[in-house]
This record gives sequence, C-alpha cells and structure tokens, in this order.
Amino acid sequence: MKPLAKLSLFACVVGGLTNPLCAQNVPTPPKMTPDMTEFWEPEVKAITADAGNVAPSDAKVLFDGKNLDQWVSVNNPQNPAGWTVADGVFTVKKGTGNIQTKDSFLDYQLHIEWKVPATITGKGQGRGNSGLFLASTGKGDAGYELQILDSYNNRTYANGQAGSIYKQTPPLRNVTRKPGEWNVYDVIFTAPRFKEDGSLFSPARVTVLHNGVIVQNNTELRGPTQYIGLPSYSQAHGKSPIKLQDHGDPSEAISFRNVWIREL
Amino acid sequence: MKPLAKLSLFACVVGGLTNPLCAQNVPTPPKMTPDMTEFWEPEVKAITADAGNVAPSDAKVLFDGKNLDQWVSVNNPQNPAGWTVADGVFTVKKGTGNIQTKDSFLDYQLHIEWKVPATITGKGQGRGNSGLFLASTGKGDAGYELQILDSYNNRTYANGQAGSIYKQTPPLRNVTRKPGEWNVYDVIFTAPRFKEDGSLFSPARVTVLHNGVIVQNNTELRGPTQYIGLPSYSQAHGKSPIKLQDHGDPSEAISFRNVWIREL
Amino acid sequence: MKPLAKLSLFACVVGGLTNPLCAQNVPTPPKMTPDMTEFWEPEVKAITADAGNVAPSDAKVLFDGKNLDQWVSVNNPQNPAGWTVADGVFTVKKGTGNIQTKDSFLDYQLHIEWKVPATITGKGQGRGNSGLFLASTGKGDAGYELQILDSYNNRTYANGQAGSIYKQTPPLRNVTRKPGEWNVYDVIFTAPRFKEDGSLFSPARVTVLHNGVIVQNNTELRGPTQYIGLPSYSQAHGKSPIKLQDHGDPSEAISFRNVWIREL
Amino acid sequence: MKPLAKLSLFACVVGGLTNPLCAQNVPTPPKMTPDMTEFWEPEVKAITADAGNVAPSDAKVLFDGKNLDQWVSVNNPQNPAGWTVADGVFTVKKGTGNIQTKDSFLDYQLHIEWKVPATITGKGQGRGNSGLFLASTGKGDAGYELQILDSYNNRTYANGQAGSIYKQTPPLRNVTRKPGEWNVYDVIFTAPRFKEDGSLFSPARVTVLHNGVIVQNNTELRGPTQYIGLPSYSQAHGKSPIKLQDHGDPSEAISFRNVWIREL
Repeated sequence: MKPLAKLSLFACVVGGLTNPLCAQNVPTPPKMTPDMTEFWEPEVKAITADAGNVAPSDAKVLFDGKNLDQWVSVNNPQNPAGWTVADGVFTVKKGTGNIQTKDSFLDYQLHIEWKVPATITGKGQGRGNSGLFLASTGKGDAGYELQILDSYNNRTYANGQAGSIYKQTPPLRNVTRKPGEWNVYDVIFTAPRFKEDGSLFSPARVTVLHNGVIVQNNTELRGPTQYIGLPSYSQAHGKSPIKLQDHGDPSEAISFRNVWIREL
Repeated sequence: MKPLAKLSLFACVVGGLTNPLCAQNVPTPPKMTPDMTEFWEPEVKAITADAGNVAPSDAKVLFDGKNLDQWVSVNNPQNPAGWTVADGVFTVKKGTGNIQTKDSFLDYQLHIEWKVPATITGKGQGRGNSGLFLASTGKGDAGYELQILDSYNNRTYANGQAGSIYKQTPPLRNVTRKPGEWNVYDVIFTAPRFKEDGSLFSPARVTVLHNGVIVQNNTELRGPTQYIGLPSYSQAHGKSPIKLQDHGDPSEAISFRNVWIREL
Repeated sequence: MKPLAKLSLFACVVGGLTNPLCAQNVPTPPKMTPDMTEFWEPEVKAITADAGNVAPSDAKVLFDGKNLDQWVSVNNPQNPAGWTVADGVFTVKKGTGNIQTKDSFLDYQLHIEWKVPATITGKGQGRGNSGLFLASTGKGDAGYELQILDSYNNRTYANGQAGSIYKQTPPLRNVTRKPGEWNVYDVIFTAPRFKEDGSLFSPARVTVLHNGVIVQNNTELRGPTQYIGLPSYSQAHGKSPIKLQDHGDPSEAISFRNVWIREL
Repeated sequence: MKPLAKLSLFACVVGGLTNPLCAQNVPTPPKMTPDMTEFWEPEVKAITADAGNVAPSDAKVLFDGKNLDQWVSVNNPQNPAGWTVADGVFTVKKGTGNIQTKDSFLDYQLHIEWKVPATITGKGQGRGNSGLFLASTGKGDAGYELQILDSYNNRTYANGQAGSIYKQTPPLRNVTRKPGEWNVYDVIFTAPRFKEDGSLFSPARVTVLHNGVIVQNNTELRGPTQYIGLPSYSQAHGKSPIKLQDHGDPSEAISFRNVWIREL
C-alpha cells in the first residue's frame, strides 16, 4: 500500500489518524452511528437455488425436457418450433430454421446447456455451428449472437469461436468441452436503450460464464451481429425474443437442455 | 421493433434496404468481405473446466481440502492461518483472527463455498457472520467486504445480508440456503485503479453469483467497507491478498471448501 | 512506450510489422481499403456558434435579456416567475420562491451566467446562495442541484461550494470569480433512466465547465440532492424542468444572464 | 413523475412520507444531521479563469503568441518545431512535418484555437486538413486524432470532418466557422490505461466542445487512429506528447493560437 498521496474526499479521518495536511480550524463532520448506514427496506426477495441443474425458484423454465411449448419458428412465429425433442433434450432439426422464445425479454440472466455429437465431423465454422441470439431483432439471423460452435481442438477466427460475441469480441478463454460432453452458458444480458428519436442511449452489455469460467466480462456490444461489415445500432428495439440458430450445416445436430431465464 | 427513426452511423445500408433520407449523391463505403472482420490472432488460450466442483485448469487452488498452506494470519502474516482443517473443509477458529492469502491479486475470478452449522443459533448479524474481503487493504477488517452471513429466514439490514457489499449494496436476491447446506459464491472482481498522485482513477467493480444466481451485476464499490460512516477511496493500493473474517461471534463456526482463483 | 507485451485483438499487423508470436499458418484478414471505414451518412447537422455570448443557432434561448416568459413559479406553475428583470439580467427576488422552465428536458447542454453583487456580505452558505437544479423532480428544492454560491475567498464544505453537486461531489477546482464579476457554467447533463418497474437503470451524469475550466467530468449523480442524509433514486422520472433557487438569504440578490439550452 | 413503483434503497423515508409497502416492524435508520454529509477536506484548490482568451492560472501555456519553445519536431524530437510564428499565431509550414509538445501528458484539459485561410481552396479531405493528436503514440501520424479540417460547406465522410474522432466517431454537430474565422476546441481527455501484461484495462475517453458546443460527449476511443482498417489498443503506453499534423496539402496553411493545457 502506498502512503497517503493526494487525499480524497474523506481522508482527514483515516483509521483514526489525523492527517497533518488537513486544516485544523475547519469543521469535522460529526461521526455517524453504525445504524445510519444500515438500510432495511425494501426487503430483498428470497428465492431458492442450488448452483446446479435445477432452475432457481423465480426462473421461467424455457425447456423442461419435455416439449418446446415456449418456442416458436422465427420465420413463422405462429408455427411451433420444428426441432426434435427426445431423451430430455432438444436438437436442431436441419432445415426447419431458427427458433425463438414465445415471450420477449429485456434484461435477464439465462442458463442454457449445449452439446455437439461425439461423432461430429467438419472443421472451422463448419463444425457444430449454432448461436444464441441474446435478443432477436428480426427474422433470420438478426440480433446479438453469442456463438455456439465446437471449438474443442478446432481453431477458427478468435471472434468466431465458442463464447465469442460473433464477429465482435473473442472469449477470454476457450473452455469448450469435448464433443459429446455438455457445455454450460450462464449469461447476464443488459439490453441496449434508445432515445425517443431512435438513436442509441446505451449499448447492450453481456457477461458470460462458459462452464463456470468468465469469458465475457460486462462486454459492450457494438450493435447486432453483422456477418459482413461493421455492426451499429441502426434500429431501436425493446423487449425481444431469444433465438437459437439452425445454421444448416451437415454435422450440426446440436442439442440443448436445462434452459431457464430470470428477468432482471 | 420501432421503425427507423433517427439513423445512426451506418444506417443507410440496413438489411439491403436503402434509406430514402440518405443522400443519393454521396459515396457509399465499399462492401467489405466477410473475412475482413475475422481475426485469428492472438489465439485464445484453451483451458478445461466443467462448471462443477473441479477448479478450471488455469486456476490457482487456494484450498484443496488438505491444508491452509496458501493462507496466513492477517495480523501476523509471518504466522500460518490458525483455523481448523478437517474432513476436507476449513472452519473459522474463533479468536484466532482473520486469515488472508499468501499471494496478492488484482483482477480475478474467485470460487468459494461456505456453510454455517445446521445447529446455528443467534439472529441478525449475530448468526453465522463472516466476510470475504475482495482485497485486503490492511490489518483487521480493512478492505472490500462481500458479506457472508446466515441470511436464511434471518432478516437484517438489506445491505448487510449474505451477498451484499457490506454497508453499501444489497444483493439483488436472497439466495441463502438452509443452515447445514453449502452456499457457492462465484466472484469476478476488478480492482480499483489510482492515479500517480494517489487519487482514484476508477473504482472497484464486482459481479457475484450466489448459488448460480446473479446478485451483484458489475456493481461499483464506493471504497473499502466502513462500519461507521461513508466509504471513500482514501488510499491507493495495488495487488492485495484476499481475506476471510473471524467475526468473533459465539455461533460463527463457518466452514469453507473448494476455493480457487483465476487472475484476469 | 512499452514493448509489445500481451497482444490485443489485431496485434499481428501493427505498423506493417509482423509479430513473431503470431502463428504463421492461420489466415490473415484481407486488408481493407481506406474508404471502407469512411461513413458519409447520416450527414452531421451544421449549426453556427462562436464560443462567446451568442447562443448557438440550434439552441433554445431561455433568457434573452428582456423577460422571463420561459420561466414559471415552481410552487404555482400556472403563475409567472416573480423574479426581477432589469438591464438585460434577471435577479432573484427574495421570497418569491424558486422558478423553473416552462419546458421540460431530458439530456441537454445548458449555458448560464451568474453573478453576486459586488457589495455582498455574509459567509459560508449564507453568501450568495442559489442553485441550478439540473432536473426539477418536484416542488421546493427537489431535484439535482449544481451549487451556485459566492465561493470567492469564502470557504465552506467542499461538496457545498460553487461548482459542486450539492452534498455529493466537490468541484475539481474553485474557479469562482470576485463578487460583481460574471461566472459562466457550461453544463452537459445526461438524465437518469429508469426501468419499467420504476427502479434505476442508469444514474444521471454531468459535465460542468466553470469559467471554461472543467470542474465536473462526467460525474455520476447518486440521486436527487438531499440536505439531510444520503441521496438515492427513489422515484422514476422523465423529462423535467430546469430550476433556479430562491434560497431566502438576506444577501442573495444573485443575477443571471445569457441562458440557453440545446437538447441532446 | 411516475408514482412509486419499485422502491430503491432508501425509499421508505421519501419526503417525510412513509411507504405502506415497507414493513413497520423493522428498524428505520436514525436520521443524520445535515453536517454529517458536509465534507470540508481536502480544500478545493482555487484558481482564476475567465472563460475567455486568457489561460487559467493553473494552466501550462503551450503557445503564448511568441515562439514554439514548447514544441519539437515529431520525427526528430531533438530538433525544434519548424513551423512559422508570426502576428501572435503559428502556422503549418508544409513539408516540415508534424510537431509535438516537449512535455508528455496523461489526463488533461486542452484549449486550442485554429483557423484556415479565408482564401482556402480544395474540397473534402483536401481543404485545410490537419489534426490534433490527443496522445502521440509514435512517429508520423501514430496516435488518437481529433480531426481539424475546413468543414464549412465542405462535405466529407461524417467520421472525417472537423470535430470527429478520425475514422471513428462523427461529431454531434458541424460547428465549423467560415474560412478566416477562428475555431475553438476545448478538450477533456482521459488516457487509456493498460494492465501489467500490456493488454487494455480502460479505453481513452474524450469530451470536446467546438466553439462552445458539445460535439464529443465522453466518447470512448477504440484505439489509435487507423487510416486503413479497424483501430485497436495493441500497444501499452503512458504519458504522451500532444501532436499537430502537417498533412502536406497545398492549401493547408492552418494557423493556431492560444494553446494551453491543464493536467487532471
């Protein structure tokens, strides 16, 4: 610890010591009592959670192992999600298109687990490619994509591997598990805010833990994902569905389980 | 989604549509190719982790169930930590004082699990009180305290319960489990930075998941914890040990296990 | 400049030099052309301004030297402002109460000039006390106060002098001019934003130049000003009037001139 | 103002009213006294300034109308700046290269005035092109450039006109005055900070007033200016000189006056 250098606001009363640089003839604020900085209200809401596979008691379960009732087709939102449900997981059904939640969300915590087949083939972006769109801002792939990819011994561009904000920010570490093993994403998303005139007020931000390791630490998003060119916030939006990508690759039979969300 | 209102930087080329508000006689930036925004270097370091009880492969284990070799007494750092190790956990030994890590850290991710005895008695702050000091800035209780307390059916001031930045910021939720059950803290800490003259450049920030639930979301800390009065950053510091509190209460036999840290 | 240490995203192609740490067998993004990062739309709006006494061409003039038509009584908003206009300036009329703008504003740049009489008496807070409320959140003194006070050779508490966010943040410097001379505040204010449920999304921020010197640099406000106790954001609000304070002191005949605002 | 919705921290004691949602049987923090939040130390340093042409009393004058003793050649820092001084201003001397301050700075407020000749010719980037490098990170044009250009009735790309962070962020408004008239930049710059390993801790930020109008409001810089491609923070640096550009165009005889800086 460095010695006192430049004093900040309250520094004449540090640790019971009087700073000789402080004037002696000016008032010293009266000492507070401990309870003056103890605030009881409002009471913090109690919930139950166990850091394991069970959703916290205040979460909305988006997939409970049984059906995709909370999901619809992106391109035809009146249609049910066309992906496959079996053995307590759901799996991309190639060619049926992206799916998204029935409900829309603003700021939230999301838990999702994903797995590529143990028998996966392909390389680079062509190996277990899907994506979690943190907010779906339109049809197709419009939105903010957190990449899902088999990045286990499968190098690609750093800002395109598992845990990256696609074409924006690489993950801090590559924590992808072997094909056939489950990966866990814990995501805390803060939606962008816009002014009345539609221009950006504050960008989206995201924190991601991949298999319990921080890979995005309050990362600022520069706009919805652009496959070509630079992202920007060109359209105001509010609450949005969450979307999963059917990337259309041959070897893409990516499965998901244990999906829940808590609005913040 | 709202219609285009005020256009942001690149908005004349949204989704293949031309905005009629944009002048037609000014240059349009040439289209990039997809690979112009694909960055391969530096390669993201690969590690292994499983979102469970095993420390990630790049973590430093601070407690492995066997001994407190990574910890020392706060008040006599040349002395070993005097707490009890048994059955793969370590437990506060009342009256031996706070303990802290041998090593110092700046920005990091920390995992720690804690438990109060199933037979705990007392109420309010007198029930399973300890604390995790995210950076120990001096002897005794100096530092930034993330509160540890039995907050299960035990109301106290909101900014003094488990998951709070003590005397500063309440947790978003009370996720404390029943006495006798293990609680998990996953902490991402960004240390404060100071200018050359010792004044504050940027405050500390912390994200905390309690049993997997976000309870502090990139919260700004207002200075080291003050039991009486208002916090402020009055002393510059750099890397610091991490500290655990011996609060000195009768019923405080709090236990810890599975402690690891990753520098960021 | 330090040598290359840890490489950031694009660091294999710095200044035409190839970094030997970078793998040689991975793709390098193709070079862009200069015009790929040259964005013409939307055109930036042109205005005129001269850094002097004349309001910029896109400003709304809140006082033009002639009348207080843009201002009303705070406590009876249907009543005109009761302060005195003479010689191109307006002056607090003791006992008539605070005044505020007819219009409401969210984010803005404000220019205002103020002066205490050359013959002023009193000391501390009792010497030329007024205040500029950056957003008036209710009757009386409710709101975010940028302090106005004769702080020339008149010491008071640091977070209560001219240029301070009252009872929160002292100015970086005391730039108050002699009684009888005009002071200039140039203020850039970002209003707080709230969530749908009324809780805080982002705090207010303010930058202030006092006589051309930066005294608040994107300072975060902790809530509306509290004369007693700690500020907090307990009530959501949107656009708000700007308010000037009639502090009620004997020697408070503070005058104002050249007031204009630009919405951001 | 919206009614109380979700209560924030201290909301049971708003304006003397008791919130019925708050429990009645929990402690209420004792009321503070007003002076508990009045902090006198450290005393704020007093300076003089007049928002006009005279430098504040704590500023370092970088050009006083007489000589370029505070400046050197960028490419040969042991050589004096080769630009022309006459009539109380200094002017780019084409072909002599960029010049930079002898001293280095970290965070600062800078005032500078610039003017293009009334007889200027050319268009787009070829009309009165120079640049203020907020930190010179190397030879040539390395650094963070705030664009200087005759943008009066001279359209170019928005992120390349006067007041822009060159090739990054357009100004909020085009406030450029007619050729032959003086423009004023008031700049508040926060330098980037780096970690020990050379990676970025926090990006540079800048606030700019152009002729008294805010054109950059705490804008985040994405790295040193890149003429081609995307900026990034690839090299750690600390205090740096401030640099002015000799762009080498025929019609570039840009003049400067009244340059001063205050370290923050």
